Amino acid sequence: MNCNTPTDIMFSFTGFALRGGNTDEHRDGWGIAFFEGNGVRHFVDHHAAVDSPLAELIKRYPIKSKNVIAHIRKATQGVVSLENCHPFVRECWGRYWVFAHNGDLKNFAPALDGVFLPVGSTDSETAFCYVMQEMRRRFVDQAPSTADLTVFLREICREIASYGTFNMTLSNGAALFVHCSTNLHYLVRQFPFTAASLADEEYEIDFTEVTTPDDRVAVIVTEPLTNNENWRQFLPGEFKVFVDGAIVEPLMA
Amino acid sequence: MNCNTPTDIMFSFTGFALRGGNTDEHRDGWGIAFFEGNGVRHFVDHHAAVDSPLAELIKRYPIKSKNVIAHIRKATQGVVSLENCHPFVRECWGRYWVFAHNGDLKNFAPALDGVFLPVGSTDSETAFCYVMQEMRRRFVDQAPSTADLTVFLREICREIASYGTFNMTLSNGAALFVHCSTNLHYLVRQFPFTAASLADEEYEIDFTEVTTPDDRVAVIVTEPLTNNENWRQFLPGEFKVFVDGAIVEPLMA
Repeated sequence: MNCNTPTDIMFSFTGFALRGGNTDEHRDGWGIAFFEGNGVRHFVDHHAAVDSPLAELIKRYPIKSKNVIAHIRKATQGVVSLENCHPFVRECWGRYWVFAHNGDLKNFAPALDGVFLPVGSTDSETAFCYVMQEMRRRFVDQAPSTADLTVFLREICREIASYGTFNMTLSNGAALFVHCSTNLHYLVRQFPFTAASLADEEYEIDFTEVTTPDDRVAVIVTEPLTNNENWRQFLPGEFKVFVDGAIVEPLMA
Repeated sequence: MNCNTPTDIMFSFTGFALRGGNTDEHRDGWGIAFFEGNGVRHFVDHHAAVDSPLAELIKRYPIKSKNVIAHIRKATQGVVSLENCHPFVRECWGRYWVFAHNGDLKNFAPALDGVFLPVGSTDSETAFCYVMQEMRRRFVDQAPSTADLTVFLREICREIASYGTFNMTLSNGAALFVHCSTNLHYLVRQFPFTAASLADEEYEIDFTEVTTPDDRVAVIVTEPLTNNENWRQFLPGEFKVFVDGAIVEPLMA
C-alpha cells in the first residue's frame, strides 16, 4: 500500500491474511512492515497468518502509514523459520529499506561482497542483498532521487527476473517500487470514493465515510482483494513506482 | 534476558512495562527484540508502554527466546518518534545485531563512513552505528569468536563511556554483551528455582513449576524487577558477557 496520507490497512489486511492458510495455501509464515515517519514497525511470524495472534492484533489496531509491505509465504527455497519470513529490512543512507518477493529464482548466486548479507536461506533475501549492494555501489554515499533510483531498480529487476519469477515490492518510505514478473494487480482509490467488498470474506467498507476528498491510496497485490473495484493487471516485465498513492510514470532510459 | 533454553519473558516484561509511564517516568516509547533462531522479532512503539496494545500482547503471548533486549525510553536526545525507539537492529556478517542504551552522551560525534548510519536522531543509535562500523573495520569479513568480540567491545564501550553515561546491551543472538556506566543489576536463575514476586505489581510466579533442572536464565536490568531475589549490582565501568544464561568471565586484555 502506498498513500498520500497515513492510512490504516485493517480492511485490506483482513482479506489478505485469510490467504495465509485459509482461502489460499500460503501458510509458511507472514510479515508486514509499516513506515511511520522514518521509523519502521516490522512484524514477522513463521506461523500461518490465519492462526497468528499478531495478525489478529494488526486486523484490529489501526496503525497508520503511507507505505506498507505485507507478505504471506509459501516456502519454495529455505525452511519455514522466522529469518526466512518476508518482508526483509536493511538500512542504507540512514533510511530503512523494506523488501518482499513472490516467486522463485533458479541458480541465482550473485557475488555478495559482505556489505549486505542474507541472514536466512531464501533466494529472496539474497536478491534483496544484491539489490542493496549494487545500489550502494552505483550511488556510493549519496542517496539518489526517486527518478534515478527508478532507472537503476528497473534495470536490476530485469536482470534478476532472468533467473526466474521475480514479483517484488521495495520501499524506502518515500516511494514504493514494484516489479511484475508474472502476476500482480493494482488499484488507486481516490475521490469519488465508493464502497468495497472483500473477495475472501463477507466484509464491506464504505470508503466515503472514512476518507477526505484529498486522500489517495494505491494497493498493489497478487490477486485482487475486492470483487467490485476496477483492479488493473500488471504486464509481465512491467515496473511501476508509486508515490503519494499515484503512479509516477517511469522515465525512459 | 539471556538463557540456555528458549524462555518467555512475560513475567519480567509485566513488571518492566509498568516503568514505562506508571511506576517510573520512561514514557517516551518502548521496544523489545526477541531472537528466534537467526531471526528477530522486533517491536517498537513511540507511545508509553503502559498504554500500548502491543505491550499488552507481549505480556500475554509467550514468545520463547534465548536472547531478548527490551527498552523503555525517557527522551534525552532526539524527539519522541518511532525511529528513535530502542532497541535498534542492524545486520552484519549475515547475523542480526540488536542494541539498546540507557544514558546520555555529550559531544559524541564519531566519524561514520556510511556503512552503518543512524535513521533517527539519538546519540544512542549513533553509538550503535559507530560500534558496528568499528567492529567490521576491525574484523573485516570474518565474524569473530565471542572471546575476540568481548575484548573489542569492552574497549570500545570504555571509549564511548568517556562521553557520558553508557549503560548498554548488545546481542547477536549467541551472546549478550553488557556495559555498565552507572547503574545495572543482574540475576541468574537456576536450579534450585524458587518463587519470585514482582517489585512493581502484585504478581508472583513459582519458577519451580515452569522450569526443568537444566534451565538457566540471566536477567539484566537497570533496577531489580523482583523484591525477593538476590540481584547483584554492576560496578561502574564493568563489562560482562552472558552466554546460555551464565556469565563468561572476560579475558584479560
